[in-house]
Amino acid sequence: MTDAVVAEEKLGSLATRALVSGGMLEEDARSVAQVLVLADLFGLRTHGVSRVMQYLDRVKVGGIDARAVVATNRVAPGLSLVDGANGMGPLVGMRALEAAMASAREVGIGAAFARASNHFGPIMPYALIAAEEGFASIIGTNATTTIAPWGGMDTRLGNNPLGIGVPAPGSDPILLDLAMSVAARAKIRRALKQGASIPEGWATDPKGQPTTDPTAALAGFLLPFGGHKGYGLALLVDLLSGVLSGASYLTRVKAWDKQPEAHQDLGHFFILIDTKRLAAPDELARRMADFKDIIRSTPAADPERPVRLPGDTEFDLLRRQRAEGVAVAAEDLEALEVLAEQSQS
Amino acid sequence: MTDAVVAEEKLGSLATRALVSGGMLEEDARSVAQVLVLADLFGLRTHGVSRVMQYLDRVKVGGIDARAVVATNRVAPGLSLVDGANGMGPLVGMRALEAAMASAREVGIGAAFARASNHFGPIMPYALIAAEEGFASIIGTNATTTIAPWGGMDTRLGNNPLGIGVPAPGSDPILLDLAMSVAARAKIRRALKQGASIPEGWATDPKGQPTTDPTAALAGFLLPFGGHKGYGLALLVDLLSGVLSGASYLTRVKAWDKQPEAHQDLGHFFILIDTKRLAAPDELARRMADFKDIIRSTPAADPERPVRLPGDTEFDLLRRQRAEGVAVAAEDLEALEVLAEQSQS
Repeated sequence: MTDAVVAEEKLGSLATRALVSGGMLEEDARSVAQVLVLADLFGLRTHGVSRVMQYLDRVKVGGIDARAVVATNRVAPGLSLVDGANGMGPLVGMRALEAAMASAREVGIGAAFARASNHFGPIMPYALIAAEEGFASIIGTNATTTIAPWGGMDTRLGNNPLGIGVPAPGSDPILLDLAMSVAARAKIRRALKQGASIPEGWATDPKGQPTTDPTAALAGFLLPFGGHKGYGLALLVDLLSGVLSGASYLTRVKAWDKQPEAHQDLGHFFILIDTKRLAAPDELARRMADFKDIIRSTPAADPERPVRLPGDTEFDLLRRQRAEGVAVAAEDLEALEVLAEQSQS
Repeated sequence: MTDAVVAEEKLGSLATRALVSGGMLEEDARSVAQVLVLADLFGLRTHGVSRVMQYLDRVKVGGIDARAVVATNRVAPGLSLVDGANGMGPLVGMRALEAAMASAREVGIGAAFARASNHFGPIMPYALIAAEEGFASIIGTNATTTIAPWGGMDTRLGNNPLGIGVPAPGSDPILLDLAMSVAARAKIRRALKQGASIPEGWATDPKGQPTTDPTAALAGFLLPFGGHKGYGLALLVDLLSGVLSGASYLTRVKAWDKQPEAHQDLGHFFILIDTKRLAAPDELARRMADFKDIIRSTPAADPERPVRLPGDTEFDLLRRQRAEGVAVAAEDLEALEVLAEQSQS
């Protein structure tokens, strides 16, 4: 695959227009594009604008409703239930994030639990948007089942990423975005596309035997990181995002790749904490700088590879790509351009 | 070590009186005993009543204030800052839990961030108390540094456990209590006491080399579970519990074993969600039962070892020990009895 480099603003505009050509309202399309472009800026390309085409393919077969009206029900001053109405995942995600931030502004902490949603992109864009307004965040989602319960022989759990973020006023926040498998399924799909094998320990075949063959791995299941600990974490993230939200959970979640026309009914949760109520921004900035210094000054096992913080790699890339342009697959850029053209005709 | 078996109520009364003999007010002592006895009921014996003697040793040298008055400052309807005033950790923990529950009752979600605290026991007791009142919980604490940052050669992070719990009305909640190291430091201390070696992969010696010698491991550092993922999680738990609370963090936390007389200034966080605002208890009960069924009915890799849920082992033991008595080390029981006698004289 050849890469193309495109300015952030242009990529956002192309993605927005492509989504409008697929039936979305412009305001909604802008929210979706914001999440996906931030994903590409962070280098999380399997969850970036390449998803626009996939989302729109599902719109065509009735799997996603491009014109869904997301409904937010504030059930308590600090708590909202969000009905995604089978809309685009990042649209549901952004509306839930906004609801949780509104609560946190009012009562210091706020949460939104969303159901009837779809793939909402990676967590880091939401955590960044929250951190830029002074909110610490705990965010999670469930997903199509790809992981077997610990000691089990069937995929009954999603990769269910969990994100935790804490702002550092005037500097980069520290953002962790943790998928529960050793490696993401998207990486295995990429290996398959490139004709490469995968490392041992990533996945098993359908009979639960270790494999390095991406085809067998995609038919089998992913291994959770840290064994039973990663299993436990994936399970609890599903309880928070799937069960508490009123969404589907575990095997009740529909697989978008096997049934693109079905409503996935994914669930997400967003918990936001207004750090300004806990300490003055100057004081938090001072403590965060001290925290970062203590970690970064740890003697490195390999002097060539200094100790880093979660998110460091992504923020370096974000800064560089904001200055020099965003790398995306040339074929994705072309596809976006073709779709964007249609929105203007 | 010989075990003794004692009724739950009697153990609670002994622990309470022992703590009173060490200078605590009876009401405060009862809160601490409640947490530690629940720990023993769950079989988490390294964090149970055996800690009473250790806590009281620190009181004697000025490391913990038995008469501390914990102060709760509700900075927003959903948010409290708790000053532990260097009191017993489980006392600070219980007061913070109560503050967060009070907020969650009012606005649907509540959090408390505690500083100036000490070792607060395991997380499961707090999560159980919360779940019994219908609250889902996310709870964490920082700790004496035992883990090196990923790629680093010095212990700068604590084992920083994270707990997530979701109630199942009328049935056992699902509770996850996750330490960030592959194995707990207390397990290594136990191996040392028993003259046993430890498995590979648990820890390294002070030079960062793998070791199976518990003495070398206690002088070296623990390995995080799941490599850089466990490292990231330990780090974010410290940001939430240490940095946001105004407590110490990373290497600024004092080591209770090396400096028993110093104020540790640990931090904890408690986030509670009132599940009754999200769904009727009947509906949550139905969904939780379905969730448990889907997991438990997964075909097992080893037919002798069915797939289990996080907390299953602990709840089995809790039920048995509530009926048949709680197992504790005979020497700990004796020590408690001696101390309890003193409180009556």
